[in-house]
Amino acid sequence: MNTYAILVAGGKGLRMGTDLPKQFLTLAGKPVLMHTLEAFQKADASTVLILVLPMNQQAFWADLCVRHGFKVPHRLADGGVTRFDSVRNGLEKVEDNGLIAVHDGVRPLVSAELIRRCFQAAASEGAVVPVHEVSESLRKVEGKGSRAVDRSLYRAVQTPQTFQSDILRKAYEQDYRGTFTDDAAVVEAAGYHISLVEGIPENIKITTPLDLLLAEQLLKR
Amino acid sequence: MNTYAILVAGGKGLRMGTDLPKQFLTLAGKPVLMHTLEAFQKADASTVLILVLPMNQQAFWADLCVRHGFKVPHRLADGGVTRFDSVRNGLEKVEDNGLIAVHDGVRPLVSAELIRRCFQAAASEGAVVPVHEVSESLRKVEGKGSRAVDRSLYRAVQTPQTFQSDILRKAYEQDYRGTFTDDAAVVEAAGYHISLVEGIPENIKITTPLDLLLAEQLLKR
Repeated sequence: MNTYAILVAGGKGLRMGTDLPKQFLTLAGKPVLMHTLEAFQKADASTVLILVLPMNQQAFWADLCVRHGFKVPHRLADGGVTRFDSVRNGLEKVEDNGLIAVHDGVRPLVSAELIRRCFQAAASEGAVVPVHEVSESLRKVEGKGSRAVDRSLYRAVQTPQTFQSDILRKAYEQDYRGTFTDDAAVVEAAGYHISLVEGIPENIKITTPLDLLLAEQLLKR
Repeated sequence: MNTYAILVAGGKGLRMGTDLPKQFLTLAGKPVLMHTLEAFQKADASTVLILVLPMNQQAFWADLCVRHGFKVPHRLADGGVTRFDSVRNGLEKVEDNGLIAVHDGVRPLVSAELIRRCFQAAASEGAVVPVHEVSESLRKVEGKGSRAVDRSLYRAVQTPQTFQSDILRKAYEQDYRGTFTDDAAVVEAAGYHISLVEGIPENIKITTPLDLLLAEQLLKR
């Protein structure tokens, strides 16, 4: 079956005076995004890679690719105002049917094995997200207070969230809602069942300097 | 006001053939637990430190203290079967009234500032836990399925969880329940209100090799 990966790089910036967006931070000698694209290529070299990047970062990215001699083939799509818009733009670059993985550009340590596991499960289940256990106690904010909740009932959601293309297209025909924080929520709101597969602890999202430190250490192992 | 810290080191092991419990892993040249004790001493040298350790680890700990020339004064209490039992045993070593912080022994990177913030808030609020935002999307398992929940309504709970001594003692008169995953849950079940203060991202719990790697990097900064 055809496989596609939509890699969403939402970090803003790059105008004068703003910080370098996380997707361009250097990890083990090259930008985070290059690690992410390579992970998908390694999992299956035939997967069509679609990188969703804000328009004002695309020239910078092209320059980075030249400077790093980066040869992994990929398509570009324009980033939108919300993640929802970005994924929808990426989806327009998928011309055929098959399986579509939607992945955070800033999760460069995703393993080839996890990517394959998600595609395989999506082929039979339709809609799949990798999850892992919540490692800390959780409280839920309610009104002015909060209460302990049973963390064993919760799962932290990773990506790639992977779908049969007809399901993902149908889901993204919906109008945007504020509760659409990930693709599973979008697909679920369209009435589909979401299946869970086991994620991996290394598949961290790089959003803080601590995360980058940890990723450096993980890559060294 | 008198201040006490009950440091719970629950990691099992040390019999033949088992792994070294996390609390004894070497972090920047010394056992994790020594960092934790030092953090509380640094926050306030007058705080009485109570280390709760399984009985079969206490001789090993005494030996470690000699070998590392570790001089931070502390009392020992016996670890119990559950965390609830361990905290209760630690509580018996508190002979006076005051403020009591209960802290995970495997959170060595807690800052003096956070410890002081928790004691200060507990003095006025009664029962305080440090929390931080949940960084990943959450799903709740329900029956055979799961559903997306709004992660902005949830907080990940850290320690030190800090209480006025009369509140904590009253709470620990209850019989144990399976839902008592942290002290806030115990105190809340006894009918008290829990206040939240802002935690710090560095205050990680060392439960995996990745966590230890990250802690090493954080200490180097």
